[in-house]
Amino acid sequence: MRPPAQNAELALLLEVSGTPKPGNVDRRRNLSELRYEHFLAGAVGARDGLRMAEHGAALGAAFERAVAGMSAQRGGNTQFGALLLLVPLTRAAGEDLSPPVLESILEGTTVADAADFYRAFEHVDVGVGEPPEGLEALDVRRGSDAIPDLEERGLTLLDVMDRSAPVDDVAREWVTGFERSFIAAERITDADGPATDRAAVTFLSLLAERPDTFVAKRHDEGVAREVTDRAADLYDRDALDRDPEAVEDFADELVSRGINPGTTADLTAAGLFIALEHDTLEI
Amino acid sequence: MRPPAQNAELALLLEVSGTPKPGNVDRRRNLSELRYEHFLAGAVGARDGLRMAEHGAALGAAFERAVAGMSAQRGGNTQFGALLLLVPLTRAAGEDLSPPVLESILEGTTVADAADFYRAFEHVDVGVGEPPEGLEALDVRRGSDAIPDLEERGLTLLDVMDRSAPVDDVAREWVTGFERSFIAAERITDADGPATDRAAVTFLSLLAERPDTFVAKRHDEGVAREVTDRAADLYDRDALDRDPEAVEDFADELVSRGINPGTTADLTAAGLFIALEHDTLEI
Repeated sequence: MRPPAQNAELALLLEVSGTPKPGNVDRRRNLSELRYEHFLAGAVGARDGLRMAEHGAALGAAFERAVAGMSAQRGGNTQFGALLLLVPLTRAAGEDLSPPVLESILEGTTVADAADFYRAFEHVDVGVGEPPEGLEALDVRRGSDAIPDLEERGLTLLDVMDRSAPVDDVAREWVTGFERSFIAAERITDADGPATDRAAVTFLSLLAERPDTFVAKRHDEGVAREVTDRAADLYDRDALDRDPEAVEDFADELVSRGINPGTTADLTAAGLFIALEHDTLEI
Repeated sequence: MRPPAQNAELALLLEVSGTPKPGNVDRRRNLSELRYEHFLAGAVGARDGLRMAEHGAALGAAFERAVAGMSAQRGGNTQFGALLLLVPLTRAAGEDLSPPVLESILEGTTVADAADFYRAFEHVDVGVGEPPEGLEALDVRRGSDAIPDLEERGLTLLDVMDRSAPVDDVAREWVTGFERSFIAAERITDADGPATDRAAVTFLSLLAERPDTFVAKRHDEGVAREVTDRAADLYDRDALDRDPEAVEDFADELVSRGINPGTTADLTAAGLFIALEHDTLEI
Protein backbone atom coordinates (compact mmCIF):
# COMPACT_ATOMS: atom_id res chain seq x y z
CA MET A 1 0.00 0.00 0.00
CA ARG A 2 1.24 3.43 -1.00
CA PRO A 3 0.99 5.86 1.96
CA PRO A 4 -1.76 8.53 1.66
CA ALA A 5 0.61 11.45 0.97
CA GLN A 6 2.09 9.51 -1.95
CA ASN A 7 -1.36 8.71 -3.28
CA ALA A 8 -2.31 12.38 -2.99
CA GLU A 9 0.73 13.46 -4.98
CA LEU A 10 0.08 10.72 -7.52
CA ALA A 11 -3.55 11.88 -7.83
CA LEU A 12 -2.30 15.36 -8.75
CA LEU A 13 0.03 13.87 -11.37
CA LEU A 14 -2.63 11.61 -12.86
CA GLU A 15 -5.13 14.45 -12.95
CA VAL A 16 -2.91 16.76 -14.98
CA SER A 17 -1.91 13.83 -17.21
CA GLY A 18 -5.49 13.02 -18.17
CA THR A 19 -6.10 14.18 -21.73
CA PRO A 20 -8.10 15.74 -23.28
CA LYS A 21 -9.35 17.78 -20.31
CA PRO A 22 -11.04 20.63 -22.12
CA GLY A 23 -9.73 24.05 -21.13
CA ASN A 24 -6.98 22.90 -18.81
CA VAL A 25 -3.32 22.10 -19.01
CA ASP A 26 -2.90 18.42 -19.71
CA ARG A 27 -0.08 16.30 -20.94
CA ARG A 28 -0.70 17.46 -24.49
CA ARG A 29 -1.53 21.09 -23.82
CA ASN A 30 0.27 24.00 -22.24
CA LEU A 31 -1.27 27.41 -21.66
CA SER A 32 0.98 30.31 -22.57
CA GLU A 33 2.59 30.88 -19.18
CA LEU A 34 1.37 27.79 -17.39
CA ARG A 35 2.84 24.53 -18.60
CA TYR A 36 2.57 20.85 -17.85
CA GLU A 37 5.96 20.91 -16.14
CA HIS A 38 4.72 23.51 -13.64
CA PHE A 39 2.03 21.07 -12.55
CA LEU A 40 4.62 18.31 -12.16
CA ALA A 41 6.75 20.59 -9.98
CA GLY A 42 3.64 21.73 -8.08
CA ALA A 43 2.72 18.14 -7.24
CA VAL A 44 6.27 17.32 -6.14
CA GLY A 45 6.40 20.45 -3.99
CA ALA A 46 3.06 19.77 -2.29
CA ARG A 47 4.18 16.43 -0.87
CA ASP A 48 5.66 17.62 2.43
CA GLY A 49 2.44 19.37 3.41
CA LEU A 50 0.45 16.32 2.40
CA ARG A 51 2.70 14.21 4.63
CA MET A 52 1.95 16.50 7.53
CA ALA A 53 -1.75 15.88 6.92
CA GLU A 54 -1.20 12.12 6.72
CA HIS A 55 0.49 12.26 10.11
CA GLY A 56 -2.38 14.15 11.72
CA ALA A 57 -1.19 17.77 11.59
CA ALA A 58 -3.75 20.56 11.83
CA LEU A 59 -5.47 21.07 8.49
CA GLY A 60 -4.57 24.73 8.20
CA ALA A 61 -0.86 24.18 8.85
CA ALA A 62 -0.69 21.22 6.49
CA PHE A 63 -2.55 23.14 3.82
CA GLU A 64 -0.33 26.20 4.11
CA ARG A 65 2.77 24.03 3.87
CA ALA A 66 1.41 22.15 0.86
CA VAL A 67 0.58 25.42 -0.90
CA ALA A 68 4.00 26.91 -0.11
CA GLY A 69 5.67 23.84 -1.64
CA MET A 70 3.29 23.76 -4.61
CA SER A 71 4.07 27.41 -5.32
CA ALA A 72 7.84 26.86 -5.63
CA GLN A 73 7.67 26.91 -9.43
CA ARG A 74 7.31 29.69 -11.95
CA GLY A 75 3.92 28.92 -13.45
CA GLY A 76 1.85 30.44 -10.66
CA ASN A 77 -1.10 28.71 -9.08
CA THR A 78 -1.34 25.13 -10.22
CA GLN A 79 -3.15 23.11 -7.56
CA PHE A 80 -4.49 25.36 -4.79
CA GLY A 81 -8.05 24.11 -5.09
CA ALA A 82 -7.04 20.48 -5.47
CA LEU A 83 -4.99 20.73 -2.26
CA LEU A 84 -7.95 22.21 -0.41
CA LEU A 85 -9.66 18.89 -1.14
CA LEU A 86 -6.65 16.59 -0.83
CA VAL A 87 -5.37 17.87 2.51
CA PRO A 88 -8.48 16.88 4.51
CA LEU A 89 -8.85 13.67 2.49
CA THR A 90 -5.20 12.75 3.19
CA ARG A 91 -5.63 13.55 6.87
CA ALA A 92 -8.69 11.28 7.00
CA ALA A 93 -6.86 8.54 5.10
CA GLY A 94 -4.16 8.64 7.77
CA GLU A 95 -6.90 7.23 10.03
CA ASP A 96 -9.66 5.93 7.79
CA LEU A 97 -11.01 7.48 4.62
CA SER A 98 -14.69 7.25 5.51
CA PRO A 99 -17.39 9.93 5.59
CA PRO A 100 -17.72 9.96 9.41
CA VAL A 101 -13.95 10.37 9.97
CA LEU A 102 -13.80 13.06 7.33
CA GLU A 103 -16.75 14.89 8.86
CA SER A 104 -15.23 14.87 12.32
CA ILE A 105 -11.96 16.26 10.92
CA LEU A 106 -13.76 19.12 9.18
CA GLU A 107 -15.87 19.88 12.24
CA GLY A 108 -12.73 19.88 14.34
CA THR A 109 -11.14 22.75 12.42
CA THR A 110 -10.38 25.89 14.41
CA VAL A 111 -9.89 29.61 13.95
CA ALA A 112 -6.15 28.90 13.77
CA ASP A 113 -6.79 26.63 10.77
CA ALA A 114 -8.73 29.44 9.15
CA ALA A 115 -5.83 31.83 9.80
CA ASP A 116 -3.38 29.42 8.14
CA PHE A 117 -5.73 29.10 5.20
CA TYR A 118 -5.63 32.88 4.77
CA ARG A 119 -1.83 32.83 5.07
CA ALA A 120 -1.70 30.33 2.21
CA PHE A 121 -2.99 33.03 -0.15
CA GLU A 122 0.25 34.92 0.37
CA HIS A 123 2.26 32.20 -1.36
CA VAL A 124 0.55 32.39 -4.71
CA ASP A 125 -1.88 34.45 -6.75
CA VAL A 126 -5.19 32.56 -6.66
CA GLY A 127 -8.05 33.51 -8.95
CA VAL A 128 -10.96 34.42 -6.68
CA GLY A 129 -14.03 36.55 -7.09
CA GLU A 130 -15.16 39.58 -5.10
CA PRO A 131 -16.35 38.72 -1.58
CA PRO A 132 -20.11 38.93 -0.94
CA GLU A 133 -21.43 42.25 0.30
CA GLY A 134 -20.73 42.80 3.96
CA LEU A 135 -17.88 40.28 3.93
CA GLU A 136 -15.16 42.55 2.51
CA ALA A 137 -13.18 42.23 5.75
CA LEU A 138 -12.88 38.51 5.08
CA ASP A 139 -11.66 38.83 1.49
CA VAL A 140 -9.08 36.07 1.11
CA ARG A 141 -6.96 38.37 -1.01
CA ARG A 142 -6.16 40.27 2.20
CA GLY A 143 -4.11 37.23 3.29
CA SER A 144 -2.95 37.43 6.90
CA ASP A 145 -4.28 41.00 7.20
CA ALA A 146 -7.72 39.45 7.50
CA ILE A 147 -6.75 37.28 10.47
CA PRO A 148 -7.81 39.76 13.19
CA ASP A 149 -11.26 39.95 11.56
CA LEU A 150 -11.44 36.15 11.44
CA GLU A 151 -10.51 35.93 15.08
CA GLU A 152 -12.95 38.60 16.12
CA ARG A 153 -15.77 36.67 14.47
CA GLY A 154 -14.44 33.34 15.75
CA LEU A 155 -14.66 31.69 12.33
CA THR A 156 -13.20 28.22 11.92
CA LEU A 157 -11.93 26.93 8.59
CA LEU A 158 -15.18 25.01 8.17
CA ASP A 159 -17.10 28.24 8.78
CA VAL A 160 -15.05 29.95 6.07
CA MET A 161 -15.79 27.12 3.64
CA ASP A 162 -19.45 27.26 4.54
CA ARG A 163 -19.58 30.95 3.56
CA SER A 164 -17.86 30.25 0.22
CA ALA A 165 -19.87 27.15 -0.64
CA PRO A 166 -22.60 28.94 -2.60
CA VAL A 167 -20.10 30.28 -5.13
CA ASP A 168 -17.22 27.79 -4.96
CA ASP A 169 -17.60 24.10 -5.60
CA VAL A 170 -14.37 23.25 -3.81
CA ALA A 171 -15.69 24.85 -0.61
CA ARG A 172 -19.01 23.14 -1.29
CA GLU A 173 -17.33 19.76 -0.92
CA TRP A 174 -16.48 20.64 2.67
CA VAL A 175 -20.14 21.14 3.55
CA THR A 176 -21.58 18.21 1.58
CA GLY A 177 -19.29 15.46 2.88
CA PHE A 178 -17.20 15.59 -0.30
CA GLU A 179 -20.21 14.39 -2.26
CA ARG A 180 -18.89 14.99 -5.77
CA SER A 181 -15.39 13.80 -4.89
CA PHE A 182 -16.82 10.43 -3.90
CA ILE A 183 -18.98 10.37 -7.02
CA ALA A 184 -15.86 11.10 -9.08
CA ALA A 185 -14.10 8.19 -7.38
CA GLU A 186 -16.94 5.86 -8.34
CA ARG A 187 -16.75 6.94 -11.95
CA ILE A 188 -12.99 6.50 -12.02
CA THR A 189 -13.48 3.02 -10.61
CA ASP A 190 -16.15 2.13 -13.14
CA ALA A 191 -14.29 3.51 -16.16
CA ASP A 192 -11.92 1.41 -18.27
CA GLY A 193 -8.34 1.67 -19.34
CA PRO A 194 -5.33 3.60 -18.08
CA ALA A 195 -5.84 5.91 -15.11
CA THR A 196 -5.22 8.95 -17.27
CA ASP A 197 -8.09 7.98 -19.60
CA ARG A 198 -10.34 7.44 -16.59
CA ALA A 199 -9.37 10.90 -15.36
CA ALA A 200 -10.33 12.43 -18.71
CA VAL A 201 -13.77 10.81 -18.93
CA THR A 202 -14.54 11.58 -15.30
CA PHE A 203 -13.53 15.20 -15.79
CA LEU A 204 -15.88 15.48 -18.75
CA SER A 205 -18.75 13.86 -16.82
CA LEU A 206 -18.33 16.28 -13.91
CA LEU A 207 -18.09 19.28 -16.21
CA ALA A 208 -21.23 18.07 -18.01
CA GLU A 209 -23.40 18.08 -14.93
CA ARG A 210 -22.59 21.32 -13.12
CA PRO A 211 -21.13 24.62 -14.30
CA ASP A 212 -17.56 25.11 -13.17
CA THR A 213 -17.42 27.76 -10.44
CA PHE A 214 -13.90 28.86 -11.39
CA VAL A 215 -15.13 29.62 -14.92
CA ALA A 216 -18.12 31.44 -13.46
CA LYS A 217 -15.80 33.65 -11.37
CA ARG A 218 -13.29 34.36 -14.10
CA HIS A 219 -15.85 34.90 -16.82
CA ASP A 220 -19.52 34.74 -15.83
CA GLU A 221 -22.29 32.27 -15.21
CA GLY A 222 -23.40 32.37 -18.80
CA VAL A 223 -20.01 31.20 -20.01
CA ALA A 224 -19.87 28.53 -17.32
CA ARG A 225 -23.30 27.31 -18.36
CA GLU A 226 -22.37 27.25 -22.05
CA VAL A 227 -19.26 25.19 -21.29
CA THR A 228 -21.29 22.72 -19.26
CA ASP A 229 -23.95 22.39 -21.95
CA ARG A 230 -21.34 21.64 -24.56
CA ALA A 231 -19.56 19.18 -22.28
CA ALA A 232 -22.91 17.48 -21.65
CA ASP A 233 -23.49 17.11 -25.38
CA LEU A 234 -20.05 15.51 -25.83
CA TYR A 235 -20.43 13.30 -22.80
CA ASP A 236 -23.94 12.15 -23.72
CA ARG A 237 -22.84 11.02 -27.15
CA ASP A 238 -19.74 9.29 -25.74
CA ALA A 239 -17.54 11.54 -27.81
CA LEU A 240 -14.28 10.62 -26.06
CA ASP A 241 -14.65 7.16 -27.62
CA ARG A 242 -16.75 7.86 -30.69
CA ASP A 243 -15.72 11.31 -31.81
CA PRO A 244 -12.47 12.16 -30.03
CA GLU A 245 -11.71 14.91 -32.49
CA ALA A 246 -14.76 16.83 -31.31
CA VAL A 247 -13.45 16.73 -27.75
CA GLU A 248 -9.98 17.80 -28.88
CA ASP A 249 -11.52 20.70 -30.80
CA PHE A 250 -13.55 21.73 -27.77
CA ALA A 251 -10.37 21.54 -25.66
CA ASP A 252 -8.44 23.71 -28.11
CA GLU A 253 -11.26 26.22 -28.32
CA LEU A 254 -11.51 26.63 -24.54
CA VAL A 255 -7.75 27.06 -24.25
CA SER A 256 -7.78 29.73 -26.94
CA ARG A 257 -10.65 31.55 -25.20
CA GLY A 258 -8.82 31.38 -21.86
CA ILE A 259 -11.55 29.29 -20.25
CA ASN A 260 -10.14 26.88 -17.66
CA PRO A 261 -12.55 24.69 -15.69
CA GLY A 262 -10.17 24.43 -12.77
CA THR A 263 -12.71 23.44 -10.13
CA THR A 264 -13.71 20.42 -12.18
CA ALA A 265 -10.04 19.42 -12.35
CA ASP A 266 -9.79 19.77 -8.56
CA LEU A 267 -12.73 17.41 -8.09
CA THR A 268 -11.16 14.95 -10.51
CA ALA A 269 -7.95 14.93 -8.46
CA ALA A 270 -9.94 14.30 -5.29
CA GLY A 271 -11.75 11.41 -6.98
CA LEU A 272 -8.47 9.90 -8.15
CA PHE A 273 -7.12 10.06 -4.61
CA ILE A 274 -10.17 8.33 -3.13
CA ALA A 275 -10.04 5.58 -5.76
CA LEU A 276 -6.31 5.05 -5.13
CA GLU A 277 -6.87 4.88 -1.37
CA HIS A 278 -9.77 2.47 -1.71
CA ASP A 279 -7.69 0.36 -4.08
CA THR A 280 -10.38 0.55 -6.74
CA LEU A 281 -7.83 2.23 -9.02
CA GLU A 282 -4.61 0.26 -9.18
CA ILE A 283 -1.46 1.65 -10.72
CA MET B 1 15.42 26.26 -3.76
CA ARG B 2 13.80 22.86 -4.11
CA PRO B 3 15.56 20.25 -1.93
CA PRO B 4 17.64 17.67 -3.84
CA ALA B 5 15.25 14.76 -3.29
CA GLN B 6 12.44 16.83 -4.81
CA ASN B 7 14.62 17.76 -7.75
CA ALA B 8 15.50 14.11 -8.25
CA GLU B 9 11.85 13.09 -8.31
CA LEU B 10 11.06 15.99 -10.63
CA ALA B 11 13.90 14.91 -12.93
CA LEU B 12 12.28 11.46 -13.23
CA LEU B 13 8.93 13.07 -14.05
CA LEU B 14 10.38 15.45 -16.61
CA GLU B 15 12.37 12.67 -18.22
CA VAL B 16 9.36 10.45 -18.84
CA SER B 17 7.36 13.48 -19.98
CA GLY B 18 9.82 14.42 -22.70
CA THR B 19 8.38 13.46 -26.06
CA PRO B 20 9.19 12.02 -28.55
CA LYS B 21 11.83 9.85 -26.86
CA PRO B 22 12.22 7.13 -29.47
CA GLY B 23 11.58 3.64 -28.12
CA ASN B 24 10.57 4.61 -24.60
CA VAL B 25 7.41 5.36 -22.74
CA ASP B 26 6.74 9.06 -22.86
CA ARG B 27 3.75 11.21 -22.23
CA ARG B 28 2.32 10.26 -25.62
CA ARG B 29 3.33 6.61 -25.72
CA ASN B 30 2.61 3.57 -23.59
CA LEU B 31 4.16 0.16 -24.14
CA SER B 32 1.71 -2.71 -23.84
CA GLU B 33 2.23 -3.50 -20.15
CA LEU B 34 4.28 -0.50 -19.15
CA ARG B 35 2.43 2.77 -19.15
CA TYR B 36 3.14 6.42 -18.48
CA GLU B 37 1.24 6.20 -15.19
CA HIS B 38 3.62 3.49 -13.93
CA PHE B 39 6.49 5.91 -14.35
CA LEU B 40 4.58 8.60 -12.46
CA ALA B 41 3.97 6.16 -9.60
CA GLY B 42 7.58 4.95 -9.78
CA ALA B 43 8.87 8.51 -9.38
CA VAL B 44 6.51 9.21 -6.47
CA GLY B 45 7.53 5.95 -4.78
CA ALA B 46 11.26 6.60 -5.14
CA ARG B 47 11.18 9.83 -3.16
CA ASP B 48 11.71 8.44 0.34
CA GLY B 49 14.92 6.67 -0.71
CA LEU B 50 16.07 9.83 -2.46
CA ARG B 51 15.45 11.75 0.74
CA MET B 52 17.62 9.30 2.63
CA ALA B 53 20.40 10.01 0.14
CA GLU B 54 19.89 13.77 0.49
CA HIS B 55 20.33 13.42 4.23
CA GLY B 56 23.58 11.48 3.91
CA ALA B 57 22.45 7.85 4.22
CA ALA B 58 24.68 5.09 2.87
CA LEU B 59 24.30 4.82 -0.90
CA GLY B 60 23.31 1.15 -0.85
CA ALA B 61 20.57 1.61 1.76
CA ALA B 62 19.18 4.70 0.05
CA PHE B 63 19.24 2.97 -3.32
CA GLU B 64 17.50 -0.14 -2.04
CA ARG B 65 14.81 1.99 -0.41
CA ALA B 66 14.33 4.06 -3.57
CA VAL B 67 14.01 0.91 -5.67
CA ALA B 68 11.56 -0.67 -3.23
CA GLY B 69 9.36 2.45 -3.42
CA MET B 70 9.74 2.74 -7.20
CA SER B 71 8.61 -0.87 -7.57
CA ALA B 72 5.33 -0.37 -5.74
CA GLN B 73 3.38 -0.21 -8.99
CA ARG B 74 2.26 -2.82 -11.46
CA GLY B 75 4.28 -1.91 -14.54
CA GLY B 76 7.52 -3.55 -13.42
CA ASN B 77 10.88 -1.87 -13.62
CA THR B 78 10.51 1.79 -14.49
CA GLN B 79 13.51 3.67 -13.14
CA PHE B 80 16.12 1.28 -11.68
CA GLY B 81 18.96 2.61 -13.82
CA ALA B 82 17.97 6.24 -13.38
CA LEU B 83 18.00 5.77 -9.59
CA LEU B 84 21.46 4.24 -9.75
CA LEU B 85 22.56 7.62 -11.10
CA LEU B 86 20.24 9.84 -9.06
CA VAL B 87 20.97 8.35 -5.64
CA PRO B 88 24.69 9.27 -5.63
CA LEU B 89 23.95 12.60 -7.32
CA THR B 90 21.31 13.41 -4.69
CA ARG B 91 23.66 12.42 -1.88
CA ALA B 92 26.33 14.73 -3.33
CA ALA B 93 23.80 17.54 -3.76
CA GLY B 94 22.98 17.24 -0.05
CA GLU B 95 26.55 18.57 0.42
CA ASP B 96 27.66 20.06 -2.88
CA LEU B 97 27.03 18.70 -6.36
CA SER B 98 30.62 18.95 -7.60
CA PRO B 99 32.87 16.31 -9.17
CA PRO B 100 35.23 16.06 -6.15
CA VAL B 101 32.37 15.55 -3.66
CA LEU B 102 30.76 13.00 -5.95
CA GLU B 103 34.02 11.16 -6.38
CA SER B 104 34.66 10.94 -2.66
CA ILE B 105 31.13 9.59 -2.13
CA LEU B 106 31.63 6.87 -4.73
CA GLU B 107 35.04 5.96 -3.37
CA GLY B 108 33.58 5.78 0.10
CA THR B 109 31.14 3.00 -0.80
CA THR B 110 31.53 -0.27 1.09
CA VAL B 111 30.82 -3.96 0.76
CA ALA B 112 27.60 -3.30 2.70
CA ASP B 113 26.54 -0.86 -0.03
CA ALA B 114 27.23 -3.53 -2.61
CA ALA B 115 25.12 -5.99 -0.62
CA ASP B 116 22.20 -3.54 -0.52
CA PHE B 117 22.56 -3.01 -4.26
CA TYR B 118 22.17 -6.77 -4.77
CA ARG B 119 19.16 -6.78 -2.43
CA ALA B 120 17.54 -4.13 -4.60
CA PHE B 121 17.28 -6.67 -7.43
CA GLU B 122 14.81 -8.63 -5.34
CA HIS B 123 12.24 -5.85 -5.52
CA VAL B 124 11.82 -5.82 -9.28
CA ASP B 125 12.71 -7.70 -12.42
CA VAL B 126 15.56 -5.77 -14.04
CA GLY B 127 16.68 -6.54 -17.58
CA VAL B 128 20.34 -7.54 -17.32
CA GLY B 129 22.65 -9.61 -19.46
CA GLU B 130 24.62 -12.73 -18.60
CA PRO B 131 27.54 -12.06 -16.25
CA PRO B 132 31.04 -12.28 -17.79
CA GLU B 133 32.74 -15.66 -17.65
CA GLY B 134 34.15 -16.43 -14.24
CA LEU B 135 31.80 -13.93 -12.56
CA GLU B 136 28.70 -16.15 -12.38
CA ALA B 137 28.83 -16.04 -8.57
CA LEU B 138 28.30 -12.30 -8.78
CA ASP B 139 25.31 -12.43 -11.13
CA VAL B 140 23.00 -9.68 -9.87
CA ARG B 141 20.03 -11.90 -10.62
CA ARG B 142 21.07 -13.99 -7.60
CA GLY B 143 20.02 -11.04 -5.40
CA SER B 144 21.00 -11.48 -1.77
CA ASP B 145 22.21 -15.03 -2.44
CA ALA B 146 25.30 -13.46 -3.98
CA ILE B 147 26.15 -11.48 -0.86
CA PRO B 148 28.48 -14.09 0.70
CA ASP B 149 30.47 -14.12 -2.55
CA LEU B 150 30.63 -10.33 -2.55
CA GLU B 151 31.83 -10.32 1.02
CA GLU B 152 34.41 -13.01 0.41
CA ARG B 153 35.89 -10.94 -2.41
CA GLY B 154 35.55 -7.71 -0.46
CA LEU B 155 33.87 -5.87 -3.33
CA THR B 156 32.50 -2.39 -2.67
CA LEU B 157 29.64 -0.93 -4.67
CA LEU B 158 32.15 1.08 -6.70
CA ASP B 159 34.05 -2.17 -7.43
CA VAL B 160 30.81 -3.74 -8.66
CA MET B 161 30.15 -0.77 -10.93
CA ASP B 162 33.71 -0.89 -12.18
CA ARG B 163 33.21 -4.51 -13.28
CA SER B 164 29.97 -3.65 -15.10
CA ALA B 165 31.22 -0.48 -16.73
CA PRO B 166 32.41 -2.10 -19.96
CA VAL B 167 28.90 -3.33 -20.79
CA ASP B 168 26.64 -0.91 -18.92
CA ASP B 169 26.67 2.82 -19.47
CA VAL B 170 24.96 3.51 -16.16
CA ALA B 171 27.79 1.75 -14.29
CA ARG B 172 30.23 3.54 -16.58
CA GLU B 173 29.07 6.88 -15.16
CA TRP B 174 30.31 5.77 -11.74
CA VAL B 175 33.84 5.28 -13.04
CA THR B 176 34.02 8.35 -15.30
CA GLY B 177 32.89 10.99 -12.81
CA PHE B 178 29.39 11.00 -14.33
CA GLU B 179 30.84 12.36 -17.53
CA ARG B 180 27.83 11.94 -19.79
CA SER B 181 25.38 13.02 -17.07
CA PHE B 182 27.19 16.36 -16.83
CA ILE B 183 27.28 16.63 -20.61
CA ALA B 184 23.54 15.97 -20.68
CA ALA B 185 23.04 18.75 -18.12
CA GLU B 186 24.93 21.18 -20.33
CA ARG B 187 22.78 20.30 -23.31
CA ILE B 188 19.60 20.68 -21.28
CA THR B 189 20.84 24.08 -20.16
CA ASP B 190 21.71 25.17 -23.70
CA ALA B 191 18.47 23.93 -25.28
CA ASP B 192 15.39 26.12 -25.61
CA GLY B 193 11.79 25.86 -24.56
CA PRO B 194 9.92 23.79 -21.99
CA ALA B 195 11.94 21.33 -19.92
CA THR B 196 10.19 18.40 -21.57
CA ASP B 197 11.33 19.57 -25.03
CA ARG B 198 14.85 19.95 -23.70
CA ALA B 199 14.68 16.42 -22.36
CA ALA B 200 13.62 15.11 -25.76
CA VAL B 201 16.40 16.79 -27.74
CA THR B 202 19.02 15.82 -25.18
CA PHE B 203 17.84 12.22 -25.22
CA LEU B 204 18.19 12.15 -29.01
CA SER B 205 21.67 13.70 -28.87
CA LEU B 206 22.86 11.11 -26.35
CA LEU B 207 21.37 8.25 -28.31
CA ALA B 208 23.02 9.62 -31.45
CA GLU B 209 26.52 9.45 -30.07
CA ARG B 210 26.79 6.11 -28.31
CA PRO B 211 24.85 2.85 -28.69
CA ASP B 212 22.46 2.25 -25.81
CA THR B 213 23.81 -0.56 -23.61
CA PHE B 214 20.33 -1.67 -22.55
CA VAL B 215 19.39 -2.18 -26.20
CA ALA B 216 22.69 -4.05 -26.73
CA LYS B 217 21.83 -6.40 -23.83
CA ARG B 218 18.22 -6.98 -24.78
CA HIS B 219 18.86 -7.34 -28.52
CA ASP B 220 22.48 -7.17 -29.68
CA GLU B 221 25.18 -4.70 -30.51
CA GLY B 222 24.15 -4.57 -34.15
CA VAL B 223 20.67 -3.38 -33.22
CA ALA B 224 22.07 -0.88 -30.74
CA ARG B 225 24.41 0.46 -33.41
CA GLU B 226 21.61 0.71 -35.99
CA VAL B 227 19.46 2.68 -33.53
CA THR B 228 22.31 5.05 -32.81
CA ASP B 229 23.07 5.59 -36.50
CA ARG B 230 19.46 6.44 -37.21
CA ALA B 231 19.27 8.73 -34.18
CA ALA B 232 22.45 10.44 -35.39
CA ASP B 233 20.89 11.04 -38.79
CA LEU B 234 17.80 12.60 -37.20
CA TYR B 235 19.82 14.64 -34.75
CA ASP B 236 22.26 15.92 -37.38
CA ARG B 237 19.49 17.22 -39.56
CA ASP B 238 17.71 18.81 -36.60
CA ALA B 239 14.67 16.66 -37.26
CA LEU B 240 12.93 17.40 -33.96
CA ASP B 241 12.44 20.94 -35.25
CA ARG B 242 12.50 20.47 -39.01
CA ASP B 243 10.97 17.08 -39.56
CA PRO B 244 9.21 16.08 -36.36
CA GLU B 245 7.18 13.45 -38.16
CA ALA B 246 10.36 11.51 -38.96
CA VAL B 247 11.20 11.39 -35.26
CA GLU B 248 7.66 10.33 -34.38
CA ASP B 249 7.84 7.57 -36.99
CA PHE B 250 11.18 6.39 -35.62
CA ALA B 251 9.69 6.41 -32.10
CA ASP B 252 6.70 4.37 -33.22
CA GLU B 253 8.90 1.91 -35.08
CA LEU B 254 11.17 1.29 -32.09
CA VAL B 255 8.16 0.78 -29.82
CA SER B 256 6.67 -1.73 -32.23
CA ARG B 257 9.99 -3.61 -32.45
CA GLY B 258 10.29 -3.64 -28.65
CA ILE B 259 13.50 -1.61 -28.68
CA ASN B 260 13.76 0.62 -25.61
CA PRO B 261 16.91 2.72 -25.17
CA GLY B 262 16.52 2.78 -21.41
CA THR B 263 20.11 3.66 -20.53
CA THR B 264 19.89 6.81 -22.62
CA ALA B 265 16.73 7.75 -20.70
CA ASP B 266 18.60 7.18 -17.41
CA LEU B 267 21.35 9.56 -18.50
CA THR B 268 18.75 12.13 -19.51
CA ALA B 269 17.18 11.97 -16.04
CA ALA B 270 20.60 12.45 -14.46
CA GLY B 271 21.25 15.46 -16.69
CA LEU B 272 17.87 16.98 -15.78
CA PHE B 273 18.69 16.60 -12.09
CA ILE B 274 22.07 18.30 -12.42
CA ALA B 275 20.57 21.18 -14.40
CA LEU B 276 17.81 21.61 -11.80
CA GLU B 277 20.33 21.57 -8.95
CA HIS B 278 22.61 24.06 -10.68
CA ASP B 279 19.62 26.26 -11.42
CA THR B 280 20.39 26.28 -15.11
CA LEU B 281 17.00 24.68 -15.71
CA GLU B 282 14.26 26.60 -13.97
CA ILE B 283 10.75 25.26 -13.62
